[in-house]
Amino acid sequence: MSLVKLYDTTLRDGTQAEDISFLVEDKIRIAHKLDECGIHYIEGGWPGSNPKDVAFFKDIKKEKLSQAKIAAFGSTRRAKITPDKDQNLRTLVDSKADAATIFGKTWDFHVHEALRIPLEENLELIFDSLEFLKKNMPEVFYDAEHFFDGYKSNPEYAIKTLQAAQQAGADCIILCDTNGGSMPYEIAAIVDEVKKHIKTPLGIHAHNDGECAVANSIISVQQGIVHVQGTINGFGERCGNANLCSIIPALKVKMKRDCISDAQMKTLRDLSRYVYELANLAPNKHQPYVGNSAFAHKGGVHVSAIQRHPETYEHMRPELVGNTTRVLVSDLSGRANILAKATEFNINLDSKDPVTLEILEDIKSMENRGYQFEGAEASFELLMKRALGTHRKFFSVIGFRVIDEKRTEDDQPISEATIKVKVGGKVEHTASEGHGPVNALDNALRKALEKFYPKLKDVKLHDYKVRVLPAGQGTASSIRVLIESGDKEGRWGTVGVSSNVIEASYQALVDAIEFKLHKDEETAAPKK
Amino acid sequence: MSLVKLYDTTLRDGTQAEDISFLVEDKIRIAHKLDECGIHYIEGGWPGSNPKDVAFFKDIKKEKLSQAKIAAFGSTRRAKITPDKDQNLRTLVDSKADAATIFGKTWDFHVHEALRIPLEENLELIFDSLEFLKKNMPEVFYDAEHFFDGYKSNPEYAIKTLQAAQQAGADCIILCDTNGGSMPYEIAAIVDEVKKHIKTPLGIHAHNDGECAVANSIISVQQGIVHVQGTINGFGERCGNANLCSIIPALKVKMKRDCISDAQMKTLRDLSRYVYELANLAPNKHQPYVGNSAFAHKGGVHVSAIQRHPETYEHMRPELVGNTTRVLVSDLSGRANILAKATEFNINLDSKDPVTLEILEDIKSMENRGYQFEGAEASFELLMKRALGTHRKFFSVIGFRVIDEKRTEDDQPISEATIKVKVGGKVEHTASEGHGPVNALDNALRKALEKFYPKLKDVKLHDYKVRVLPAGQGTASSIRVLIESGDKEGRWGTVGVSSNVIEASYQALVDAIEFKLHKDEETAAPKK
Repeated sequence: MSLVKLYDTTLRDGTQAEDISFLVEDKIRIAHKLDECGIHYIEGGWPGSNPKDVAFFKDIKKEKLSQAKIAAFGSTRRAKITPDKDQNLRTLVDSKADAATIFGKTWDFHVHEALRIPLEENLELIFDSLEFLKKNMPEVFYDAEHFFDGYKSNPEYAIKTLQAAQQAGADCIILCDTNGGSMPYEIAAIVDEVKKHIKTPLGIHAHNDGECAVANSIISVQQGIVHVQGTINGFGERCGNANLCSIIPALKVKMKRDCISDAQMKTLRDLSRYVYELANLAPNKHQPYVGNSAFAHKGGVHVSAIQRHPETYEHMRPELVGNTTRVLVSDLSGRANILAKATEFNINLDSKDPVTLEILEDIKSMENRGYQFEGAEASFELLMKRALGTHRKFFSVIGFRVIDEKRTEDDQPISEATIKVKVGGKVEHTASEGHGPVNALDNALRKALEKFYPKLKDVKLHDYKVRVLPAGQGTASSIRVLIESGDKEGRWGTVGVSSNVIEASYQALVDAIEFKLHKDEETAAPKK
Repeated sequence: MSLVKLYDTTLRDGTQAEDISFLVEDKIRIAHKLDECGIHYIEGGWPGSNPKDVAFFKDIKKEKLSQAKIAAFGSTRRAKITPDKDQNLRTLVDSKADAATIFGKTWDFHVHEALRIPLEENLELIFDSLEFLKKNMPEVFYDAEHFFDGYKSNPEYAIKTLQAAQQAGADCIILCDTNGGSMPYEIAAIVDEVKKHIKTPLGIHAHNDGECAVANSIISVQQGIVHVQGTINGFGERCGNANLCSIIPALKVKMKRDCISDAQMKTLRDLSRYVYELANLAPNKHQPYVGNSAFAHKGGVHVSAIQRHPETYEHMRPELVGNTTRVLVSDLSGRANILAKATEFNINLDSKDPVTLEILEDIKSMENRGYQFEGAEASFELLMKRALGTHRKFFSVIGFRVIDEKRTEDDQPISEATIKVKVGGKVEHTASEGHGPVNALDNALRKALEKFYPKLKDVKLHDYKVRVLPAGQGTASSIRVLIESGDKEGRWGTVGVSSNVIEASYQALVDAIEFKLHKDEETAAPKK
């Protein structure tokens, strides 16, 4: 089957999302990742709208991309002037991008109400602008804004706008569901109609306001569309744009269409994570294909079946997108889950062993108190070790004190911790400052222990999450702290729960350090 | 057009999600909300699988629902025994629910590999089980597990399993996309085929592994299906179930199908929030129809157009589902956004006023330092008041100290705060304990101020969120604290940012109190 071209607009439409803003350097880094993943076009921004986007097009020229083409976004010319006098069109040419994408009005209502010009004049705007760009840019795309709403309002006029773009020589005409409310059956029928009138290759740009953006894109390809616009993780204004992380595997695995290589698709989960990271957003664990839970199994029935035949409960192999099957530990869990988890940690556990049942009981009681081991698998491993008696106590904390002090209204407070630890009969009593009480405590604890365990110097605290658990869920209102730590080799998560955030943080910090010490010991003397 | 019946499985399939677990009381409360919203069937659980679910069916009998029917979930009988001897089927009857829903195998592969019985025997399991339930329960539904995968593997056999259910008298046969990977065009074609063989009313149960669950449900209705299963907010295992919060407005507004009343649909956003609240999860702000961002506008072009004609950039009126249009403040914002926001807060702001530009500059600089006013609109209002000179300083904090102390390894630490405040020339110096340093500081601050402002006794801290902002985004690695406070009349959000969590929390606490004092003053003497 013929190639479907992927057009990413994470850097332009994606940044319209409520919680997303990228620095120019972030955009350059993301562009490299998109290029490596085989995305054909990268829309870098709207140079006519802000200086940050102008800077992107200047900087990206210095970068070496392996295959992706850079597109600059803009609109049709303003009324009453010629294209070469239009500031917005000139900025597109000046961007020296590989392609220009401009949007124009399809919907008669918008022509009357937003542009306030006659319908005929709008056709001239579209034609002139594209003709001008076609002479000055290697490739030119036309985004037919509000195409589906416009078609429903006035089909003849909507088609006329596309014909103007075709006549001007647009390389691809993209049908946009700008307001995102079109239903899949409407998309199918309208694309079918368009094909009767337009010979230029067609594209789709869907928004997710009806929770149908991915389906609408897939259906369009099924109807003969060859260019799909979307964003990584579906970032975008309101409910987001069509999610390329879901469209790509659908195209390749389900529809057997060519778009990126198998090897590139294996990096999809990494790409998704990378973009979340730079956007400073927590990944959506339930995200299709690439999310942490996408191939996670909780119910006991599923788990035992999954282990025999993954295809019974998985719609595709997670490895294809760089994801993996996960087995969850929770109050719905049976012995099969505990055993699978133990195997993951190289711990020998017998299903008939009373210890297995003991761990299950421990987990249930801890979950009732607000613990959650998903995302805190290091704490879970320590819990298993304690039940099995293979846990080693590397140190004990005799006591600590943390003081935060603010002297005047405008000064930053100072946080200071003192701590007393005991390792093999020796007592260490020390103090440290920090950015806040938990950081001060972490610094003091590690300072005290590094004397005995110098490898702790490699440990870094990567993420710290605090969650207030409402009263009624479990016994009392309590606080759960999740900490992600890492060293050169990897990262691990630990959890602590208490009515006091300092105590909860302390538990998670101690687990993080104990996990590191166990890990190093096991690496030094691996099990048979 | 004929009625589409809605079947909610939030309380059963929804709880299979990685992060969701409900107490029996939560389930009862959610059942009431679903009933009020007009959902026709509420699947309460699988009584044969755990005692918590047995308790639900017992307790719900004591409740008075206005219209919803309660369904109990289970599976077909085990091989080699008669239905009346099957423990699982008997539990369904014993549940005294209004309806029973059982799942059976459609996919030949599963019959061979999971049940390990001949294909013919599986048909007997389906027939016997449904026939038995039909005699003992008011209504009986058949969930054809893995229907679409089964149909693709062996269409003749898949249809035979449905025919067995039809012959046994099932009131509705539900086609399940259990693994969630079916594409919308497959669903359409297969439902069409099924209708040629089956006269019993058909239902759909879609999962979201391909990000198509809502579209697949909509397409099924378009093809003649009259019963839709899903969950509130799309909760469910892996990538979730079909989201009823998106399906309901699609059915009513887009497809003009009857399901719940207009008045009931206006409570959809509340229902969505309520279920998030009891599940102890943060709402997805980008959620279609009901999310905070679903009708939020950021780009300056959109905002001015929205104010003239909402239909230009909104696919439907947000009020229909109890949502509202929102205008966002961000680094993409123009004056129009600031002005719209000011109007929301009843502040007179002139677009030519240099103050408007000053606020814009302040916001940009604060956003660079990591502030975010989305979700902290009380802090934003105070910021505007400060720029306009209408902000009143109700108190000043001269200094504070917070001490957390842990004396032994097993003791909980004690947190104590001392604070000195000044109100109108009078100094108050006091102390308080708390569950952790922030709580102690909050208690001490309020204790000191309540003496001067007794109404602060009404203020409660509802939510406290901490986010570590990675270095590189803004100047240095910093911490953002978002606090949600409330009194009898409403709730408000405030924000603080600092490299020290105590300072960030302090800023947000002070804003929360200042907002309350301003609010009370304005209520007492409203503006003209």
